[in-house]
Amino acid sequence: MKTRHLLTVIFLISNLSLAQQPANPAALNNATRSYIAQHRQEIMREFQDFLAIPNIATDTPNIQKNADALTRMLKKRGLEVQILKVEGAPPVVLAALPPLPDRHTVTFYAHYDGQPVNKADWKQDPWLPTLVSRNGSFDDPEARIYARSAGDDKNSIIELLTALDALQSAQIRPSVNIKFLFEGEEEAGSPHLDEILSRFGPSLQSDLWVICDGPTNQNGEPQLVFGSRGIVTVQITAFGPNRPLHSGHYGNWAPNPIVELAHLISRLRTEDAEITIPHFYGPVRPLTAAEQAALKNVPNVDQQLRKELALGRVEDRQTLAEQIMKPALNLDRIEGGGAGPKPANAIPSSATAYIDFRLVPDQTPEIVKQQLEAYLRSLGYFLAGKPPTDAERLQHGRLLQVVWGAGYPPQRTPIDAPVSQAVIAAARTVTGNSLALLPSLGASTPSSLFEQQFKKPVITLPTANYDDNQHAANENLKLKNLWDGIALYAGIFATVGSLWK
Amino acid sequence: MKTRHLLTVIFLISNLSLAQQPANPAALNNATRSYIAQHRQEIMREFQDFLAIPNIATDTPNIQKNADALTRMLKKRGLEVQILKVEGAPPVVLAALPPLPDRHTVTFYAHYDGQPVNKADWKQDPWLPTLVSRNGSFDDPEARIYARSAGDDKNSIIELLTALDALQSAQIRPSVNIKFLFEGEEEAGSPHLDEILSRFGPSLQSDLWVICDGPTNQNGEPQLVFGSRGIVTVQITAFGPNRPLHSGHYGNWAPNPIVELAHLISRLRTEDAEITIPHFYGPVRPLTAAEQAALKNVPNVDQQLRKELALGRVEDRQTLAEQIMKPALNLDRIEGGGAGPKPANAIPSSATAYIDFRLVPDQTPEIVKQQLEAYLRSLGYFLAGKPPTDAERLQHGRLLQVVWGAGYPPQRTPIDAPVSQAVIAAARTVTGNSLALLPSLGASTPSSLFEQQFKKPVITLPTANYDDNQHAANENLKLKNLWDGIALYAGIFATVGSLWK
Repeated sequence: MKTRHLLTVIFLISNLSLAQQPANPAALNNATRSYIAQHRQEIMREFQDFLAIPNIATDTPNIQKNADALTRMLKKRGLEVQILKVEGAPPVVLAALPPLPDRHTVTFYAHYDGQPVNKADWKQDPWLPTLVSRNGSFDDPEARIYARSAGDDKNSIIELLTALDALQSAQIRPSVNIKFLFEGEEEAGSPHLDEILSRFGPSLQSDLWVICDGPTNQNGEPQLVFGSRGIVTVQITAFGPNRPLHSGHYGNWAPNPIVELAHLISRLRTEDAEITIPHFYGPVRPLTAAEQAALKNVPNVDQQLRKELALGRVEDRQTLAEQIMKPALNLDRIEGGGAGPKPANAIPSSATAYIDFRLVPDQTPEIVKQQLEAYLRSLGYFLAGKPPTDAERLQHGRLLQVVWGAGYPPQRTPIDAPVSQAVIAAARTVTGNSLALLPSLGASTPSSLFEQQFKKPVITLPTANYDDNQHAANENLKLKNLWDGIALYAGIFATVGSLWK
Repeated sequence: MKTRHLLTVIFLISNLSLAQQPANPAALNNATRSYIAQHRQEIMREFQDFLAIPNIATDTPNIQKNADALTRMLKKRGLEVQILKVEGAPPVVLAALPPLPDRHTVTFYAHYDGQPVNKADWKQDPWLPTLVSRNGSFDDPEARIYARSAGDDKNSIIELLTALDALQSAQIRPSVNIKFLFEGEEEAGSPHLDEILSRFGPSLQSDLWVICDGPTNQNGEPQLVFGSRGIVTVQITAFGPNRPLHSGHYGNWAPNPIVELAHLISRLRTEDAEITIPHFYGPVRPLTAAEQAALKNVPNVDQQLRKELALGRVEDRQTLAEQIMKPALNLDRIEGGGAGPKPANAIPSSATAYIDFRLVPDQTPEIVKQQLEAYLRSLGYFLAGKPPTDAERLQHGRLLQVVWGAGYPPQRTPIDAPVSQAVIAAARTVTGNSLALLPSLGASTPSSLFEQQFKKPVITLPTANYDDNQHAANENLKLKNLWDGIALYAGIFATVGSLWK
């Protein structure tokens, strides 16, 4: 025991001295890359074991297994683990390395839950991680591992932990105090995160939040992102007769709910992405000069993507990077008239549209909710919160059921703030000049919740390949992105503290 | 054997003498009702056995079992049976009673196939006929039997055969020569019926076609129908990216096929049933004075139906009876973004609308096809007949896959023609004045094919309850409609020949 204590003290002293001067970027990168090359088997074994645990937020027993596995993985590396629990929420795993005084604290956030799956659409079980490599090894630069959450977002967790391993192996102490916060219901809209941040605030103090989620640039190069679009989802159901009716006997007399829903959708937005809900764009904050300058330097991948995705048109004339700075109204699903090989010729009882709104500063889910509901009412609709009774259907010629899902507001950290500049410089010790700087991610992360709760900057560092089928069937991660992600986190751990003015 | 021959001769002579003077309607009805009351068990046994044979047109082995059962049921009654077979079509069963000279021949058409089922929506197996009766017996006036085709259209076949039994039991000879034609793919759009009528024309000669299909009036009273709307179905698919895309990263840049389809539907028809395809109403023939007069006498069931179906509005200001004299564009199903408990927040690859058009004279499926395709092209669309390749998707900013289904044109027999008046008078010997006269059924039957092929009148005689969930889950027949249908056919068999001027 004594020997061990003594060794720990020597280790801490040696690290302290290392941390007092900036790490040599070239030496650090060599050490990290060498560590990765020598430990690919173990890294992949840990990743695959983690991916094999089913992780839908509502699957409570399996979500607990994920949290237990995470706890073991963190404790093994000497982190102190605390489980943050609130009623009805999956466990949130908070972990910290023993802190040193007079250093900035950075909390790295990721999530261990995944999007719901439709197994029929997958080539293999979503929780049977499957390696596809042309030469059967991890060396193939095109090798990918297929599993739910391979790219969104268990990859980030493995990269963060392995970056620590690589630094420890090279006896390099992180330049900041590090905490990890791993959530288990991000893909369900983080309905309890606000409560958790508020209740456990004292344990969660830090000077910077880094959201480890999302894909790198579509040109394959890394990027730093200074915000994310907010999100709020809504299901809208229109109603026809209270039972399906033969479309010959009743067609063009009994109201057709698919027709009603189609007209409604066409009144919500154009085919060119313009949202036609009155006053919708009112709260949108213009981009700053620094954000506009950064946008100009984002690589233009539009032609490459249009070809790859077989897009004969795009929804507006601006670039993808410019488009995702605006709010969006997305139709995720529409259904009416059942499923199966061939529809009956019948007027269905109802039809439902599943919509997600993507929001930009200073929109909020609450504002959008009020705007949409006011608009629907102005179109003559009575809005029901739950399935309407026959009496309600009879009473209201125009009737919709509107059910809102969870969501979060958008968030944006000024790209020219000192902390932003420190993270950019730290990332560049690994990436060189290939780093793209995006004022906002198109996707949604809970970054706004951290900003609102702690009034501290939030920056997003995505590492997955852009073509990872995130949220869809056959989700995957390119192994190259895993190795690059480890190196990037290791570089940031080691240098950001000394670059932070 | 000798005794039997002698009896047959006596029977024929007695029937001949009976047929030379109009049957006494009251005596005839009493005899039929008495026969039904005494044979309910056997009638229901035969009906249930027939309903228990699965009967989707594409289920070849089971369709053959239906045809075999029909053949047995017909031969048992002394009818001569001929199976009409063309490549790829279910067997068509043609049967005839031995004809007498100098009589009109009437062919009664029905179909033994049923609409496809979604078993999950049914309370019991669609082919496990289930009696629901409040007192457990056939006497309950609300008793119903639940099974696919209980009301559309195996009921008609059982009623026709039992009507023959009732007449034979009362030793009453039909007043016309009777043929039955039972088809096995009506619910699939009768794709081979035209070929069959043409190829087997000589066996199919008759002076009148009676289509035994469809529901009675919504007020529960019987009706005669002098036409039917035509039908043609079409699937329209819009395309987004060639794989589902995260709606955050790509939302409002990558085209959303659900949005495109919604706008397209809103350009095809209004929420008030008006079809906005250019020139669509051009071929519509105005109603004659006799048809308008008949329409005025159709019972108005709109308020009753609106309450029963919980309809807060209807699609146009005219009555149901008036509305179904016009063409309709019905949305039967819409799908995009998959199925399952909760959608991913993703832009789907495609979205599909399933449409049926209901046509009135002088529209045809071919005219509608040309009108719709011309309109879609005028909106800038390239139309693909099969799933487009990536190259086609990339080439055409506006691209739809348009797949037409089978269909038939509309048909209408003049309500004031002598044959129409004879059938009306024959039916009234059973129904009295409660008979409604409808210029056209809202639904589609292949009546136009008979008219086109044989240039003979076609009249439709529906007997099912209007609330039979035809084409939907939990299809059923009220037993009262079965008993009434038997009596009605018996009356027409016995009297129409002598009433035909």
